[in-house]
Amino acid sequence: MLRVGINGYGTIGKRVADAVRAQPDMTVSGVAKVSPDYVAIGAAEADYSLYAVDGSRTDAFHEMGLEVAGTVDDLVADSDVIVDATPSGVGAENRPLYERHETPTIFQGGEDATVAEVSFNARVNYDEATDADYVRVVSCNTTGLSRLVAPLEAAYGIEKVRATLIRRGGDPSQTGRGPINDAVPDPVSIPSHHGPDVQTIFPDLAIDTIGLKVPTTMMHVHTINVTLENPPDDDRDVRDLLAAQDRTVMVPEHARIDGAGTLKDLALDAGRPRGDIWENCIWAESITLEGNDLYCMQAIHQEADVVPENVDALRAISGHLSGPESRSLTNETLGIGFGHLDDRAIRRLEEPAAD
Amino acid sequence: MLRVGINGYGTIGKRVADAVRAQPDMTVSGVAKVSPDYVAIGAAEADYSLYAVDGSRTDAFHEMGLEVAGTVDDLVADSDVIVDATPSGVGAENRPLYERHETPTIFQGGEDATVAEVSFNARVNYDEATDADYVRVVSCNTTGLSRLVAPLEAAYGIEKVRATLIRRGGDPSQTGRGPINDAVPDPVSIPSHHGPDVQTIFPDLAIDTIGLKVPTTMMHVHTINVTLENPPDDDRDVRDLLAAQDRTVMVPEHARIDGAGTLKDLALDAGRPRGDIWENCIWAESITLEGNDLYCMQAIHQEADVVPENVDALRAISGHLSGPESRSLTNETLGIGFGHLDDRAIRRLEEPAAD
Repeated sequence: MLRVGINGYGTIGKRVADAVRAQPDMTVSGVAKVSPDYVAIGAAEADYSLYAVDGSRTDAFHEMGLEVAGTVDDLVADSDVIVDATPSGVGAENRPLYERHETPTIFQGGEDATVAEVSFNARVNYDEATDADYVRVVSCNTTGLSRLVAPLEAAYGIEKVRATLIRRGGDPSQTGRGPINDAVPDPVSIPSHHGPDVQTIFPDLAIDTIGLKVPTTMMHVHTINVTLENPPDDDRDVRDLLAAQDRTVMVPEHARIDGAGTLKDLALDAGRPRGDIWENCIWAESITLEGNDLYCMQAIHQEADVVPENVDALRAISGHLSGPESRSLTNETLGIGFGHLDDRAIRRLEEPAAD
Repeated sequence: MLRVGINGYGTIGKRVADAVRAQPDMTVSGVAKVSPDYVAIGAAEADYSLYAVDGSRTDAFHEMGLEVAGTVDDLVADSDVIVDATPSGVGAENRPLYERHETPTIFQGGEDATVAEVSFNARVNYDEATDADYVRVVSCNTTGLSRLVAPLEAAYGIEKVRATLIRRGGDPSQTGRGPINDAVPDPVSIPSHHGPDVQTIFPDLAIDTIGLKVPTTMMHVHTINVTLENPPDDDRDVRDLLAAQDRTVMVPEHARIDGAGTLKDLALDAGRPRGDIWENCIWAESITLEGNDLYCMQAIHQEADVVPENVDALRAISGHLSGPESRSLTNETLGIGFGHLDDRAIRRLEEPAAD
C-alpha cells in the first residue's frame, strides 16, 4: 500500500487526494495546507490528516477547531511518495525538502519542465517514469493536447499541429481573477509556451500553439488543426479512432450539449464528484477533414483532467503496475467515461431510426 | 407511499425527482420530458420511467435508445400527485390536464399566483396547503426572502423590508441567456414583482424590491434592509437567530468564502449532489444593525433552494405529516445544513483562541 502525501490541498490537491483514496493500492498519508479556510475544514471533514505548511500558523488551525498532525516536513517523512500540488513555482522551491527525505515526488504542470527528470502523460510515456525519482504531470492543456495527438500520430502520422487555446480566466472559486470582459492574448508572443510543453511529451512533434484568456471559469476550449501524413478517407474514421481512446469522450450531436455549461451540467447529473470531467470532450460534429487537414474542437476541464494522470504517475514512479494496467485501474475506480452517451447518442448516428 | 409524477425534467424537475426518491414516504412514478437530449438520457440512466410530453415525438426518444412509458397524460394517471416543473407559464396551460384527472398538483414560482389556491413556503404557511388541491411553491428569490423574513418578523416585528435582488442571468447550462457584460435593471419598474410575490406568503408585510440581472450563472445575491419594530441590542443576536433556523446558513468570516464561486466549491467539496445549496447563505459579517435598520447580504442557489420546499409541499398537500415533521424529515434525508462550518468556524467567532 503506497502512502501518498499531498502537499498543497487546493483545486488539484483535493481532487488528487480523493482519487488516491479511491485506489485499492494507495492510501493518503496526509494533506498539507497553508490556511485554515473552508477547504481545510473540508479536509478535516473528509478525515484526512492535516499538516500545516507553515508550522508557525498551527495555532490558526487550532483556533478553527482543526487538529494538526505536524508540519509539511513531518508529512514528507510519513509518506512513500509526495504529490506536490502547490501553486506554480512553489513546487520547485519545495524540491530540496523532498530530496532531503529522499522521497520521490510528482510535480504539476505549473512548474518548469526542469523541476523533474520526466514530463509525464500516462497514454504516451508511462514507462519513462518508472525509473525516475521526480516526475512532472504536464498541465491541463498539455494533457488535453497529448491525449489527442497520441492516437492521431499512431494511426495517421502527423506533419504538424496548430492549436488555439481559449483558456478559462480562472477557476470558479478564484474571484480575484480576470478578464471580466475581454479576450486577452496570453501570452501575446507566438508560439505560446504550450507547444514546447507538448514537446516534453512528444520531442519530435511539430506543433505551434496560440493562447488567450476569456471570461469563463468552467473549461478551456481548444480549436485544433492537425495536418496528417496519411489521412483516412472519411472523418468518421477519426471519430471512431478517438471514441475508442479511454480518456477522450465524443460529444454527440443529438445529446444537445452545446458548451462547457451543459458539459458541467451533464457531469453533475451523472453524479461525478465535484462535477469533474477527467476526459477530453470532443464535439463529434466538429471533427472534419479537408484534404490532409483535420480540424476539431475540444473542451478540457482544467480542475480535473490531470487527476487520473497523477494517479498513474504515482504507479509509474513506484513501479508496481504496467501503464495499461494502471490506466485501466484508474479509469475503473474513478468511473472515467460517459458510456451512456456513447451507448445512446452515438448509436443514433450509426444506426438512425432503428426502432 | 405517495406516487409523485414530475412533469418537466429540467433544472428543477430533475432535482425534485432525486429529492423525492430520497424520501421514505414517496416514490417517483415517472418523469415527463419534451426532448430526448442529454438530460433525458440521464433520466433513463437514473432509472426513472420516461414519459413523452409530446406523444408525436416518441419516435425521437426511441431513436436515442430511450424507452417511453407513455405520454404525459399517462403519467398523470399513474401518479397520486404531480409536480409541474415545466417552464414559466406552461404550468398554467397544464392545469386543465391535472383537473381532468383530479390529480393534486404542485406548481413552481414561475407561474402566476393565480395558478393555485395557495402560494407556499414550508416555514411560513405549511398548514394552508393541507386542504388545497393546487399549491404553488414560490420562486427561488421569494423563497429566499421568506426564509429571512419569517424569523425576523416573529422575533422583532417588521416595519418594512427593502431588498435589491442581483439576479444571475441564467443557469450554467443556459448558453443562450444574457447579459454578457451589463447590470440590467429587470424589471426596470419599481417595485419589482418580487415584493408582491413575497406578499403571497406574508399578506400584511410591507416590502419593496428592486431587481436586476448580471452576468453570472451561479447564484442570486440579495442585499437586504429590514426596518425592525423592536430591534435587539446587538447584531450578534440577529446572527444567532438566523443561525438557529433550519434553512439559513451563516457564512463565517474565517472560512474565507468570498462569493458564489467559493460557496459552490464548498458544496461540491462537501459531496452535495450537483453541488446544490438548498439553504440561504448569509454572510455573517454583513449582518449589521444601524438603529432600527438591519442590513445583510445573502446568496440564493436558484437551481436548488425550492427543492426541499417542493418535497414539503407534497407532504402538505397529501396531509400525512405536520409541517415541522416534514421539514425535519426533508432536511435529514437531503442532508441540509453545513454543520461543519458552524461547528468549526462559528466557534472561532464565539470563543476566540480557545486552544
